[in-house]
Amino acid sequence: MTILLSVTGFDPSRWWQALHDAAPEQKIVVDAAEAGNEPIDYAVVWKQPPGLLATLPGLKAIFSLGAGVDHILADRELPDVPIVRIVADDLKERMSEFVVWRVLDHFRRGRAYRQQQAQKIWHERMQPAAREITVGIMGLGVLGLDAAAKLKVLGFEVAGWSRSEKTAPDVRTFAGDAGLGPFLAASDILVVLLPLTAGTRGIIDATLLSRMKRETPLGGPVLINAGRGGLQDETAILAALDEDRLMEASLDVFTVEPLPAESRLWSHPKVFVTPHAAALSDPDSLAPIIMRQIAAHERGEPLENVVDRRAGY
Amino acid sequence: MTILLSVTGFDPSRWWQALHDAAPEQKIVVDAAEAGNEPIDYAVVWKQPPGLLATLPGLKAIFSLGAGVDHILADRELPDVPIVRIVADDLKERMSEFVVWRVLDHFRRGRAYRQQQAQKIWHERMQPAAREITVGIMGLGVLGLDAAAKLKVLGFEVAGWSRSEKTAPDVRTFAGDAGLGPFLAASDILVVLLPLTAGTRGIIDATLLSRMKRETPLGGPVLINAGRGGLQDETAILAALDEDRLMEASLDVFTVEPLPAESRLWSHPKVFVTPHAAALSDPDSLAPIIMRQIAAHERGEPLENVVDRRAGY
Repeated sequence: MTILLSVTGFDPSRWWQALHDAAPEQKIVVDAAEAGNEPIDYAVVWKQPPGLLATLPGLKAIFSLGAGVDHILADRELPDVPIVRIVADDLKERMSEFVVWRVLDHFRRGRAYRQQQAQKIWHERMQPAAREITVGIMGLGVLGLDAAAKLKVLGFEVAGWSRSEKTAPDVRTFAGDAGLGPFLAASDILVVLLPLTAGTRGIIDATLLSRMKRETPLGGPVLINAGRGGLQDETAILAALDEDRLMEASLDVFTVEPLPAESRLWSHPKVFVTPHAAALSDPDSLAPIIMRQIAAHERGEPLENVVDRRAGY
Repeated sequence: MTILLSVTGFDPSRWWQALHDAAPEQKIVVDAAEAGNEPIDYAVVWKQPPGLLATLPGLKAIFSLGAGVDHILADRELPDVPIVRIVADDLKERMSEFVVWRVLDHFRRGRAYRQQQAQKIWHERMQPAAREITVGIMGLGVLGLDAAAKLKVLGFEVAGWSRSEKTAPDVRTFAGDAGLGPFLAASDILVVLLPLTAGTRGIIDATLLSRMKRETPLGGPVLINAGRGGLQDETAILAALDEDRLMEASLDVFTVEPLPAESRLWSHPKVFVTPHAAALSDPDSLAPIIMRQIAAHERGEPLENVVDRRAGY
């Protein structure tokens, strides 16, 4: 059996080593040519070169190196085999850390206190209680639900929105186009954890931003996007910040990554930028999950977390 | 019945209003002279003028406006009546927010990412998982235990130290002088929530800092003090930061407050300063708790959360 590891944008060697360590008996190649005459059974990919997977006649399944699969589905010549997302406690926990960190930093006025410190100003700011704040989470998959549960433990009210109806314990849920308005009207801090699909692309646009709350217990609403850059209209976000309709934003993802030096987001005083680092895909944690799935599939067991191509996630 | 509200350092009007709103039938004065010939039954205080309470012969109990009582016990002429601390969910939740916020900001490399953003550097930092980090909490009272439970939910390992033996679910506990060394050897991030007593004054000194871990999964150890400024030796903290023995610090409390403009802590790049704002005492949340306790005491019920003067908390 041969496994192809195909990545774009970074050195695959840590992943190769972790996959190898998880199942040393398997042959893992980083270039299809290395396989010689042997068919490639599985592909483990991050932004594979378009068309590459279609050239592999023996391919049984494609595994994503991350929670999202938009980087795979962007390939127009994708063969008709199952695509598997990673669902891993490690990824989920890192994403929830990021969400809770950013919510707390906005909520506890990190930016204002850093500015005060720079000016040596000793001044206690008015601070609402967590129960006075509703964090609205867009996307109620594994990541959104875990972040919701952890924010609840800290005392926040949590609302959730998803394209299709979902329920979650202690979360006020809203769904679809009809639910978006009431959801935005309830949310003081908006956290975006949606997958990037045809239905969500550009959803954080001028219209959505104009429907957000004007007044919140913090002064104004806050946007946190840890989903995908393709979800957001960066010009509209900058306009909302400049016009004080949006109080602050934490953005981990961008339309173009790395974020170009000329983007005003880098230097906007109300924006906190991280380099798509919310939930690092740790090879040592994730490779064993992939290799276990491959072994199970070889034994005839069903694959878990298979992507619905029509839904896009 | 007459209640004296005696505070130093801020305007008592918000507290007066909140106490009045909680029990409009009670007479509340902010100056003992206002009571005229009537005895003062209860004192509700923050840093009362030394000697004042000793002049009130009818005094039945003293209530602190915060979780700490060191500001009361500093008065050498304190009458021999019960002193009551505030134990309130509101205070506890705000303190845990602060602790979790600061732990996450150090753990998720907030300072490094803010520096990178200022320089428009797109670079993902190595990020350990929460389970690889032990947060060591000094002080296992109501505040320490609540912070511990919330940090556990986020996946951190938690160790705890207190002067006398305590146990807590899922927390590795250490006690007394003998336990301090092993506790420090286990802690990557040190959170100080101790009360200020004769036994804890200056405990964060050069010796303690020299016993902290040198290597941690974050590079070096982190100090967070949200207890009292009197617990810390600021010269020793600055030396440890300058010598790279301490990676970063978040300090909410200081030996002298407001922190003097000449303190190097204001401008030290590795220090985050907040103005004793970790857990705001919100009059609207706390006044009803005090007035309920006074009413219960008048009915002959025992006071709760009475301070052990010898222990100092």
